[in-house]
Amino acid sequence: MLVRNLDKVESSPAYEGIKKRVVIGPKQGAPTFVMRVFDLASGMSTPYHTHDWEHEVFVLAGKGLAVDEHGETPVAPGDAVFVPPTERHCFKNPSGEVFRFMCLVPLRGEDAK
Amino acid sequence: MLVRNLDKVESSPAYEGIKKRVVIGPKQGAPTFVMRVFDLASGMSTPYHTHDWEHEVFVLAGKGLAVDEHGETPVAPGDAVFVPPTERHCFKNPSGEVFRFMCLVPLRGEDAK
Repeated sequence: MLVRNLDKVESSPAYEGIKKRVVIGPKQGAPTFVMRVFDLASGMSTPYHTHDWEHEVFVLAGKGLAVDEHGETPVAPGDAVFVPPTERHCFKNPSGEVFRFMCLVPLRGEDAK
Repeated sequence: MLVRNLDKVESSPAYEGIKKRVVIGPKQGAPTFVMRVFDLASGMSTPYHTHDWEHEVFVLAGKGLAVDEHGETPVAPGDAVFVPPTERHCFKNPSGEVFRFMCLVPLRGEDAK
């Protein structure tokens, strides 16, 4: 059993204005899926893109927008977002504070932009 | 894309004093892994058990203990716990408040006690 506090997990810049933490991943022995946490600074957005694996997202802090081809949905702590494989999507932070969310992917989705 | 607020997800009793919510699972189309959230009432514990799949846990509210064969580790919001396959484990709530944590498993770990 491994216990890790999120604040003690090293972050890396995933994109401009976006910090990524791999909380439970291949280095920790994760065999199936990976727990990552992203911090989007004010005004930032993840790329509007698609891939053939899913996202399972849970908002931890701040406010943001979950975006797909149908529009933008405001999300806040306690909201979960399921992005099925191949759906075009991004996450935006139009607020003045950091938008933090967990984003889990299958192993093959990690380290792929 | 599906957005679900945790408070609007129906809960079911997993064990005595334990509520379970399947936030993103087979019914939502999850192809690889399942996001569940558990609420342990004061004094409650999950079974001390083992299985051949992993848990990826993230504490959302309250305080609890993550237990394995080496002892008990206090956990609180912001702590993640990785339980590798076959490791004996449970989660306890000795506090006076609800202990809420997310617990993700591969598809084959859902609906198995």
